[in-house]
Amino acid sequence: MKLHLDRSIKTPLYLQIRSQIRQLILDNDLSPGFRLPPERKLATSLGVNRTTVVNAYHELVADGLIQPHVGKGTIVRPPRPTEHSFDRFANANAIQPISWQNFYTRQSERMHNPVLASILDEIGEEDQISFALGSPAGEYYPLKEFSEISKEVMRPGNWQVFEYGPTIGHYPLRQYLANWLGQRSIHTQAQSILMTSGSQQGLDLLTKVFLEPGDYIVMEEPSFLGAIGVFKAAGAHILTVPLDQEGMKTDVLEQILSRHRPKFIYTLPTFQNPSGTTMSFARRHKLLKLAYQYHVPIVEDDPYSELYYENQPFPSLKSLDEHEHVIYLGTFSKILFPGLRLGWCVAPFPVLEQLSLAKQHVDLHTSTTVQWVMTEFCNQGLLDEHLPIVRKQYMRQRDAMVTALTEFAPQGLSWTVPEGGYYLWCELPPGMKAAALLTKAAEKKVTFVPGNAFYVSSGGKDRIRLCFSRHSETTIREGIYRLCKTISEILNQPHPSGTTNRPRYSEPLV
Amino acid sequence: MKLHLDRSIKTPLYLQIRSQIRQLILDNDLSPGFRLPPERKLATSLGVNRTTVVNAYHELVADGLIQPHVGKGTIVRPPRPTEHSFDRFANANAIQPISWQNFYTRQSERMHNPVLASILDEIGEEDQISFALGSPAGEYYPLKEFSEISKEVMRPGNWQVFEYGPTIGHYPLRQYLANWLGQRSIHTQAQSILMTSGSQQGLDLLTKVFLEPGDYIVMEEPSFLGAIGVFKAAGAHILTVPLDQEGMKTDVLEQILSRHRPKFIYTLPTFQNPSGTTMSFARRHKLLKLAYQYHVPIVEDDPYSELYYENQPFPSLKSLDEHEHVIYLGTFSKILFPGLRLGWCVAPFPVLEQLSLAKQHVDLHTSTTVQWVMTEFCNQGLLDEHLPIVRKQYMRQRDAMVTALTEFAPQGLSWTVPEGGYYLWCELPPGMKAAALLTKAAEKKVTFVPGNAFYVSSGGKDRIRLCFSRHSETTIREGIYRLCKTISEILNQPHPSGTTNRPRYSEPLV
Repeated sequence: MKLHLDRSIKTPLYLQIRSQIRQLILDNDLSPGFRLPPERKLATSLGVNRTTVVNAYHELVADGLIQPHVGKGTIVRPPRPTEHSFDRFANANAIQPISWQNFYTRQSERMHNPVLASILDEIGEEDQISFALGSPAGEYYPLKEFSEISKEVMRPGNWQVFEYGPTIGHYPLRQYLANWLGQRSIHTQAQSILMTSGSQQGLDLLTKVFLEPGDYIVMEEPSFLGAIGVFKAAGAHILTVPLDQEGMKTDVLEQILSRHRPKFIYTLPTFQNPSGTTMSFARRHKLLKLAYQYHVPIVEDDPYSELYYENQPFPSLKSLDEHEHVIYLGTFSKILFPGLRLGWCVAPFPVLEQLSLAKQHVDLHTSTTVQWVMTEFCNQGLLDEHLPIVRKQYMRQRDAMVTALTEFAPQGLSWTVPEGGYYLWCELPPGMKAAALLTKAAEKKVTFVPGNAFYVSSGGKDRIRLCFSRHSETTIREGIYRLCKTISEILNQPHPSGTTNRPRYSEPLV
Repeated sequence: MKLHLDRSIKTPLYLQIRSQIRQLILDNDLSPGFRLPPERKLATSLGVNRTTVVNAYHELVADGLIQPHVGKGTIVRPPRPTEHSFDRFANANAIQPISWQNFYTRQSERMHNPVLASILDEIGEEDQISFALGSPAGEYYPLKEFSEISKEVMRPGNWQVFEYGPTIGHYPLRQYLANWLGQRSIHTQAQSILMTSGSQQGLDLLTKVFLEPGDYIVMEEPSFLGAIGVFKAAGAHILTVPLDQEGMKTDVLEQILSRHRPKFIYTLPTFQNPSGTTMSFARRHKLLKLAYQYHVPIVEDDPYSELYYENQPFPSLKSLDEHEHVIYLGTFSKILFPGLRLGWCVAPFPVLEQLSLAKQHVDLHTSTTVQWVMTEFCNQGLLDEHLPIVRKQYMRQRDAMVTALTEFAPQGLSWTVPEGGYYLWCELPPGMKAAALLTKAAEKKVTFVPGNAFYVSSGGKDRIRLCFSRHSETTIREGIYRLCKTISEILNQPHPSGTTNRPRYSEPLV
């Protein structure tokens, strides 16, 4: 596909791209089913911003000439069907295709999360050093143990492993978790634990049970993008509280609570995603006190607290809560395997019952097979054996990333050093935008998540999140080197591309 | 726990039960944590209807004295905390527990499905002959093959099996399914298939994408209770079309479509649940024609069509659809293993994209591990080897059930003989109620689902659904013998319990 852009004329570049591709399609030089180059690739080859290509493709989709396919790129559409294919039914000559978008709900229209989708799509692109995906390192997975246990659990005669099971989850696994959480001062019982298909499902169920469109909720900013996505789709008004090095600023929270009655406060107090921050002990108490005072439930999302690299973190809000105001979400995704999709929710009894009822409508129950195998894995003490191993490895990787940054970082780049979890949260040199940096960095085969993905508002454009969990120390060093080199090059350009974006395309699309 | 009922006084039995249990709790004869007997058991031991005990327990819950625990029965509550435990925070002496029900959504309040819950809870009660649960027979599961493949797929080095994956699903599995569906004249591509956590999740995603509260949808009556539950919870107005032996009555459908604009028509055209009916070829065409004419999408739920015991069933609506009006749901739950929670949805591209976006918010993706193992199982040809085995077995079981009914059925009991699937749909002798029969039958250790569970309206009280998939021919014969004996006994009672229920409790709770 040959395109020729003319920068001397006034026609915007995206319209030039659009009209040239349109002509190629109408002339049948690009036939139906032809896969257009990925936006990033075409942008690179034409020497334009990715957003320019994104906008051109957007116009061509509106023209009905091309069609994006989830995860599979963009293809040329077949021509509209002609009338003679419609002769099967009497009076059916005028059968119209359904205009599906007219059938969708308002909730459906609020669903957008290109960042998360592109992070998930990125899996498997092997030449990239990706600091984007927040996932454990595959090389530490205890595969031998897990596969042996799987085979044993699925042994002939043990057909219960493949049966329908209770919506609330497999009892022995909930019993194990109750005991395991007890060792972390969360005193609960199997009866108060609901197994979920990852903690993302916990968020979705909470949304179903608690959030009407227009309801207020409170969350930290920045925060977990999957939570922002599901709360936004539910039509919630999201009130945000900024973070400092002690976590959520409870004085700001107090102001909010004195004016609004949110359905809940969502917080990720330990090794927060993306900022790495841990809420101080005093703030934890203050937060609980405010929750009690204003009768607001707290949703505590706690995927990372077992991944501590210095001291054990402060007790969870759930363990400090004496008045059943905290709903707690946990998951195996960050400490063991994300692909199993297995998490849990600890909640006061009436809430747990309501969440179970919702889950029954959603998927009946989480995979019996996965739960039984995990139960055996845990009961053999293998989870407890696994945690010290990954703590040690991730600590080294964190240190490798910090060391490399200290060595290679150009002036103006700063970063946090988290005491646990997966993420370094960086502030770019003044004037530099994360989206522009990502385009350049991807050319050098290193990626990350631009900070604005973690903001409800338009903030975070000068921040990036770097995940250190997935690569060896050597690879991390190489990736940070590439990244810092990219930043330096942008800083040294006469017109840094980060500041020459035309304003109308300033909203990054990745 | 000793209770003494006095039938000579006017106080209703449920109030007698309630006040005696209350006294036992207040006297601390039943201490906190004590598990009350299951409703059915207590009912049997007291010689009362189960609904009587249900109502007594309901009052005790309202009194704050007992608490139902999902799947675990009913326990005595601890006493309310006293004030001195509240002294941790200044000004917190008056900390109130949260009144959770004030926080719930309207959708949440619409969630009720005790029938489905009790069917799932029933799993594991070994002494019962249950014709209730619509699930494959564990004894035919190909466990040896599946466990070997699991171990092989999870082998050391193959860590991708445990990673995050694309929301739309594992590509090789979708490719297998596209080809497999192609052999059933559904011509589709991997790109048009979304993997779901069982087809129940397909229904939930469709609800999220299509149904606003107050929207109309159309479905057969009777129909799958899991679909009724999720559509009701979404606040849909459900318009129902009766069935005859040719399936959904399209003349009634036409009347409905001429007056309403439903978001979709939900249908289970082949070996319908619960009626066993298969929609005729002419009706399939008529249904599609009406869908085209009125621009209404069709949701075709097709879990059973591979389980045919005579001829191959008529082509699916999806395979007959030439204008992309049909969204198709499939699942491994009925043909292989229900506990894996693995199904799929085939939909026109824009719908599939919207469903994927919804799924990303719901649980990111379905278990990678489960998908990879299933892919290998299917690619080794083991699904295609498995199907003829279960077809043969289930056919025998169906025949055993029909034979036993023919032999033992009292006058007035009638049933359908389905050409595939799992279910016989029975009409009880005149005047007999399914709920009353269930209470008596459970005492004789045989259970089923009362017909009203499958009705949107108040219909179906004189019907029962019998599932023949889970038991051997001998056990089926014994179960049908017990059931028919129960029916005969009720018929021969001077005052059949089915007709002496007080009207206010006539709505069955199971």
